Amino acid sequence: MLVKVFITPKEEILDPAGRAVAQALRSLGLEQVESVKVGKYLVLRLEVASPAQALQAAAKACEQLLANPLTEDYRYEVEPE
Amino acid sequence: MLVKVFITPKEEILDPAGRAVAQALRSLGLEQVESVKVGKYLVLRLEVASPAQALQAAAKACEQLLANPLTEDYRYEVEPE
Repeated sequence: MLVKVFITPKEEILDPAGRAVAQALRSLGLEQVESVKVGKYLVLRLEVASPAQALQAAAKACEQLLANPLTEDYRYEVEPE
Repeated sequence: MLVKVFITPKEEILDPAGRAVAQALRSLGLEQVESVKVGKYLVLRLEVASPAQALQAAAKACEQLLANPLTEDYRYEVEPE
């Protein structure tokens, strides 16, 4: 089973990487870029029997390692292989 | 308009960050983790009139700045705000 995890800086947190990317894109001529957020995208391959088990593992992974609860938001979705 | 961009290391490319995360998750007791890929997730906010314009800008952004075509795969999707 695959779990896709999407992690982004919280709305109120300064995101210097996002600002740098936005500026670079505008310099390339993409002046329609208003803002950019740079986050992380992880794909976990899990050996589990059910989507419920995958969700449980994903919750634990995010809470205990993948996301910083002070500065980041996250969500995840399960996808059968 | 929002464009969400998902960038992952190509299948055949060694992903040391992914291996490190997989090992760390197993150490936390998540032994059902087979493998992990670590990629990037960007959210671009664009001032455009149509989804077609957003897709065009996203293609240019990925080709010219965001993704390394030698080592990374990417996809993007447009979402009205």
